[in-house]
Amino acid sequence: MNSRRSVTRESLLRLGVELLTEQTYSSTGLDALLRRAGVPKGSFYHHFASKADYTHAVIDAYGAYFAKKLERTLQAPGRTPLAGLAAFIDSAIAGMARYACRRGCLAGNLGQELAAQDEHFRQQLDALLSDWQRRVANCLRAAIAAGELSADCDAEAAAALFWIAWEGAILRAKLAGSTAPLQLLRTQFFCRVLGVAEPPFTE
Amino acid sequence: MNSRRSVTRESLLRLGVELLTEQTYSSTGLDALLRRAGVPKGSFYHHFASKADYTHAVIDAYGAYFAKKLERTLQAPGRTPLAGLAAFIDSAIAGMARYACRRGCLAGNLGQELAAQDEHFRQQLDALLSDWQRRVANCLRAAIAAGELSADCDAEAAAALFWIAWEGAILRAKLAGSTAPLQLLRTQFFCRVLGVAEPPFTE
Repeated sequence: MNSRRSVTRESLLRLGVELLTEQTYSSTGLDALLRRAGVPKGSFYHHFASKADYTHAVIDAYGAYFAKKLERTLQAPGRTPLAGLAAFIDSAIAGMARYACRRGCLAGNLGQELAAQDEHFRQQLDALLSDWQRRVANCLRAAIAAGELSADCDAEAAAALFWIAWEGAILRAKLAGSTAPLQLLRTQFFCRVLGVAEPPFTE
Repeated sequence: MNSRRSVTRESLLRLGVELLTEQTYSSTGLDALLRRAGVPKGSFYHHFASKADYTHAVIDAYGAYFAKKLERTLQAPGRTPLAGLAAFIDSAIAGMARYACRRGCLAGNLGQELAAQDEHFRQQLDALLSDWQRRVANCLRAAIAAGELSADCDAEAAAALFWIAWEGAILRAKLAGSTAPLQLLRTQFFCRVLGVAEPPFTE
């Protein structure tokens, strides 16, 4: 693939992430998308076999971007594991506020819409959330090893609850038009679920 | 309104609840809906000014149905408040299993899709979730008064977290194709968030 083609592919994926965090798959028309991207249809079909194929690639791109962000935030040098998790939450809250709580999570949006309708999308989105969950479970295990969390904390169950509640909080933030649901999740997760006396502040 | 017209309205609302717990607003075409209901277009427009107007009525009907179900389950005679909450969760888990985790929550589905796009839908769906939240907060306050929960439990915050995590768990159950996320929420909510030693069994 030459670099011009690769730039087209990347810019289509970026636009797809942008659109699909704010609107549904079914309401995202290919013609409007290509007009907005300034990309001719033939060029689109050079890179992607179909709208579904393109959307699978958008989900992969979003998953990879998010996994990298999680890794960078959770494992920043000089940060304890729980301070890393707090920093991740705070950065996401700032991101929601930046777009006035109109943009959600692409995995939550597409999952809500497509899980029951398309087995490939269901499996891909479930795997993506399971990957994020594994990363948070590792973070909680590191917090136990570092003595930040009690050894009786069930890191797997807490990480699963975190992502369940996280997707719910993003949805509720969009409905409330406010980041308050994400703030509430932050406090309740640290203080009640993890049993930490004081939720960590982000530096 | 004569009774035949009222039956038409009710059957359109029932079909709307059914369709919109499984598919999106934008992919729900009025023509297909009316064909399925066996209702002529003129009759539809006798009851509803538009698809949006109809969907507002569907949301109201779903909210009222659900509030009644919550009331009946949380306040069943002879049941403690926490046993009532457990019974509500178990009945919803059974409902998800009945439809193979393909049908979600109408408020979650439409909220995910419409919150950022339509201010009236956003407000209506937010109010509906706030109503359910108030009912669970009342249940938790009753549990405190009955000595089932420690007096230092923050009923408001716990009820808010419950509905945040609930909507997230329904979404994850659709993605996982399993009720495991709802079971996990049940255990974690009772044991970690509420700090109950043994989650209640439903009779």
